[in-house]
Amino acid sequence: MANFQDVAKQFTEFYYNQFDQDRTQLAALYRENSMLTFESASVAGAPGIVEKLTSLPFKQVKHQVATLDAQPSVDGAILILVTGALLVDEEQRPMNYSQVFQLRPDGGSYYIFNDIFKLVFG
Amino acid sequence: MANFQDVAKQFTEFYYNQFDQDRTQLAALYRENSMLTFESASVAGAPGIVEKLTSLPFKQVKHQVATLDAQPSVDGAILILVTGALLVDEEQRPMNYSQVFQLRPDGGSYYIFNDIFKLVFG
Repeated sequence: MANFQDVAKQFTEFYYNQFDQDRTQLAALYRENSMLTFESASVAGAPGIVEKLTSLPFKQVKHQVATLDAQPSVDGAILILVTGALLVDEEQRPMNYSQVFQLRPDGGSYYIFNDIFKLVFG
Repeated sequence: MANFQDVAKQFTEFYYNQFDQDRTQLAALYRENSMLTFESASVAGAPGIVEKLTSLPFKQVKHQVATLDAQPSVDGAILILVTGALLVDEEQRPMNYSQVFQLRPDGGSYYIFNDIFKLVFG
């Protein structure tokens, strides 16, 4: 199995590219037991999570990852903390955010088990 | 077992109070298999973690939690994302930070398995 740092970097890059290009396609990264807490609102399961993400009130979005730290977790899982900024639509000022993912192994690949997203106001 | 939200709140309050009062006492919250990534430097095991925390270059510190989000994790573990600010020594400007904890159950209580701390620069 690949190094957890490499998995974390590859996953994060893939996730935000997919999010920024077409977030309706993110369903493949979640499962029935996945959880998302987005700005303190919680949803569970791939369909509900993708419905939440696609209903966010912006059309264009661009995530810029500033830092990424990863640790191995329970039973081959991987914990990731991302800090970064995002730009939406015509807004010129990026918003800072922090996001935690816990990836769990699933037949040679990984899916998102935990996902907590939070805007950070300085 | 208590609700994961309650555990997360109680743990976080206890942790930062202990940190701010006397961080040499934090060893009781970590175990041999615990991991800390502090500003991207990683250490493992309670003694190394507490050595890292106590060697940080400030005497006085005050954490102020702004937001706390928690989710249940694998095998009764609890994942917590904290965003907040900290003030050190005579510095007047708080520094923003984000911190992830994964708590694992251990005989009726919990210990810190994963701990990732990151300053956030806006």
